[in-house]
Amino acid sequence: MPRDSVKIGLLGMGTVGGGVAALLARSDGLLRERTDIDFVIKRVLVRDPSRKRAVELPPSVFTTAAADVLDDPEIDVVVELIGGIEPARTYITAALQRGKYVVTANKDLMAQHGAELLELARRFNRNIFYEAAVGGGIPLLRPLKHCLVANRIKRIIGIINGTTNYILTRMSQDDMEFDAALAQAQALGFAEADPANDLDGLDAAYKLAILAGLAFHSRIDAGAIFVQGIRDVTRQDIHYARDLGYTVKLLALGERCGCDRVGDTLALRVHPTLVPLDHPLAAVHNEFNAVFLEGDAVGEVMLYGRGAGAAPTASAVLADLVDAARCLRSELENGVMESKFKPEALLPMSALSSRFYLRLLASDRPGVFGALATAFGDEQISLDMIIQKRSEAGVAEIVLVTHQVSEENFSRALKRVTALPAIQPRYSIFRVLS
Amino acid sequence: MPRDSVKIGLLGMGTVGGGVAALLARSDGLLRERTDIDFVIKRVLVRDPSRKRAVELPPSVFTTAAADVLDDPEIDVVVELIGGIEPARTYITAALQRGKYVVTANKDLMAQHGAELLELARRFNRNIFYEAAVGGGIPLLRPLKHCLVANRIKRIIGIINGTTNYILTRMSQDDMEFDAALAQAQALGFAEADPANDLDGLDAAYKLAILAGLAFHSRIDAGAIFVQGIRDVTRQDIHYARDLGYTVKLLALGERCGCDRVGDTLALRVHPTLVPLDHPLAAVHNEFNAVFLEGDAVGEVMLYGRGAGAAPTASAVLADLVDAARCLRSELENGVMESKFKPEALLPMSALSSRFYLRLLASDRPGVFGALATAFGDEQISLDMIIQKRSEAGVAEIVLVTHQVSEENFSRALKRVTALPAIQPRYSIFRVLS
Repeated sequence: MPRDSVKIGLLGMGTVGGGVAALLARSDGLLRERTDIDFVIKRVLVRDPSRKRAVELPPSVFTTAAADVLDDPEIDVVVELIGGIEPARTYITAALQRGKYVVTANKDLMAQHGAELLELARRFNRNIFYEAAVGGGIPLLRPLKHCLVANRIKRIIGIINGTTNYILTRMSQDDMEFDAALAQAQALGFAEADPANDLDGLDAAYKLAILAGLAFHSRIDAGAIFVQGIRDVTRQDIHYARDLGYTVKLLALGERCGCDRVGDTLALRVHPTLVPLDHPLAAVHNEFNAVFLEGDAVGEVMLYGRGAGAAPTASAVLADLVDAARCLRSELENGVMESKFKPEALLPMSALSSRFYLRLLASDRPGVFGALATAFGDEQISLDMIIQKRSEAGVAEIVLVTHQVSEENFSRALKRVTALPAIQPRYSIFRVLS
Repeated sequence: MPRDSVKIGLLGMGTVGGGVAALLARSDGLLRERTDIDFVIKRVLVRDPSRKRAVELPPSVFTTAAADVLDDPEIDVVVELIGGIEPARTYITAALQRGKYVVTANKDLMAQHGAELLELARRFNRNIFYEAAVGGGIPLLRPLKHCLVANRIKRIIGIINGTTNYILTRMSQDDMEFDAALAQAQALGFAEADPANDLDGLDAAYKLAILAGLAFHSRIDAGAIFVQGIRDVTRQDIHYARDLGYTVKLLALGERCGCDRVGDTLALRVHPTLVPLDHPLAAVHNEFNAVFLEGDAVGEVMLYGRGAGAAPTASAVLADLVDAARCLRSELENGVMESKFKPEALLPMSALSSRFYLRLLASDRPGVFGALATAFGDEQISLDMIIQKRSEAGVAEIVLVTHQVSEENFSRALKRVTALPAIQPRYSIFRVLS
């Protein structure tokens, strides 16, 4: 293997940059074990080197001169986390020209100048990885590029802006007015002080441009996407929508249209949309994101998760870093090497804890429920829910749901309970997801 | 680029094999354009070469002798779609020993002998791709191997058996008994004539072994997984569960347990489980599959789609074929090359069709609704739902939902409607997902 260590130059150390450094520090041993590569942050471009950082790095690592990162021949991969168009665009251009791989989380830049930067990367036989630009840590771009490569994608439907989804969820679930929901989103950090790009749908349009580019193998002009934001959605509309069987979501929609009327073309748009309550996207609440895809072979696929936040975004950046490192090593293995996995003992079921649902039939005579309760109590099992239906023909049906209990204790209690003469031999046990 | 064509040897041409050949034929131009590779099926091992096939291949391609595939030095990738342990295991072993890459959809084999086969692949500097072994075409193994590489996975919760999920959905939604739901699943092809492996949870356990291996970077003994099938779930249980706020799903659960009591270990199990109705997995209906993951950095992620069927499975097999071809070419690009994408014009919004939700306020005087209806009728817009609330202070609120109409027609109708003196200037429009 030609190299054991990959040297990283970080541009920017704000929320996401700090998250990347923290995750790299935390999962250092993990990544080394999984990839046989040491990832080393060699230089970090910051505005103020004296500022306290959450992750400790040697002071000599920090610089205020971009050239210290971009011109360092030892740096293999430049990770751009400044955001915005300039100077990010100039820095990425310089990095590619100097033969470095690039990882970026910059959706504005990739939506508006991705095509030119990826073409430049190709000319220099390098690549740009940008999984973190859309949907935080949700696997989106790699599945589109790799897993669905044999599909013609017919349609994308995405909830890809966490701020607006949080606001619409609050309006819907807590019957809040728009302004109050926005204020709450800002207080919780789900909306910025200036939320215009989110509320007006521009953030979603940029992300849609990136997703649609990969889904439809096309260069998208992000500025040509129809955009309607959520400022006009009222509590009243949400009520009506619910009465009609819908919930209101800001959707980013992309479709390949092959009709006679317009020929083969793309339709892209972002607008508030009534989503049928039984559609999987209707269940995407709060700050969560999800992208629903229809491929001609795979059918319907949905990818769901946290679309923002330092740790999820860092998860995507590190995955990109590993891919860049694999490219540097011309690695054939194309992923984690399962052959390195070690055998591991499984925990026996008896050592686990579960919540249990138990249904049984009991003769309707005095003392039965007491005996049952005693059996559970003796095994430290507390009950969360109890239902006893009116007995028929002297037989009562009892349904119990326990709190979290050890499998061992539960099975001992069950043995005692089912040995009671008043309890019938047929019963049902299921575990409850907690 | 060292090669322009990749020669494939297919082992087996049943449902999945036929699906692979069909998708390869259908997306031939697509794959060539996306990857610069020609994929050619050179030999196909079948039991009966004279049988009619859905996809036309030259008769000389078919053989009944495995050696014709395995010993052919021109064949680069062997795609094993026979299923079961033997002779699949012997064939894959031979293919690897002869320097071929292997693609397989064989969950039984990978769950029980994956470790030894992957180790053999490593020794011969080759690889086995098996995305299709779990969850059909849903991106699962690649996201686990690549996208989430920087995460410690804490928990997997999967609905990974379509047969049982179909049966439980019917029991729950149509209030059917188990036997009737099973019969319907069999009639529709969602359950096999001998459904034991599905109903008893063994199929799910094998898939869990594969998923958990990748999620926890571990070699799993599939036989040690606790399994409870769904034969004991009754309609009655499903009723009670619903009363309590749950739905019943066959879940495959994997957790890394790091408690003091047992040290660092894994807990794996398959059993019917009550899932809270507001959990994303509760909305996974019918034959759909979904895997819910919790990573320490990425948080909660869910991957959802069709877990079986010829076309979805073929989608995964072809993605694996592309990866194998990339390995053969030692390709650095690591995926689709976006730089090859071409600019494309977007369809203007006016050329699209949508369903519309319109809310407006109208003076409560005779003729208003007629004028409104005429404006819509003149533009060929038919209405799906209409609500008019009792008017307050002489003003009536009207909510309309249209059927699919052209954006152009709708906006013309809207202009006419809002020009009516009886209609107030503030109104809301949203589009309805269809």
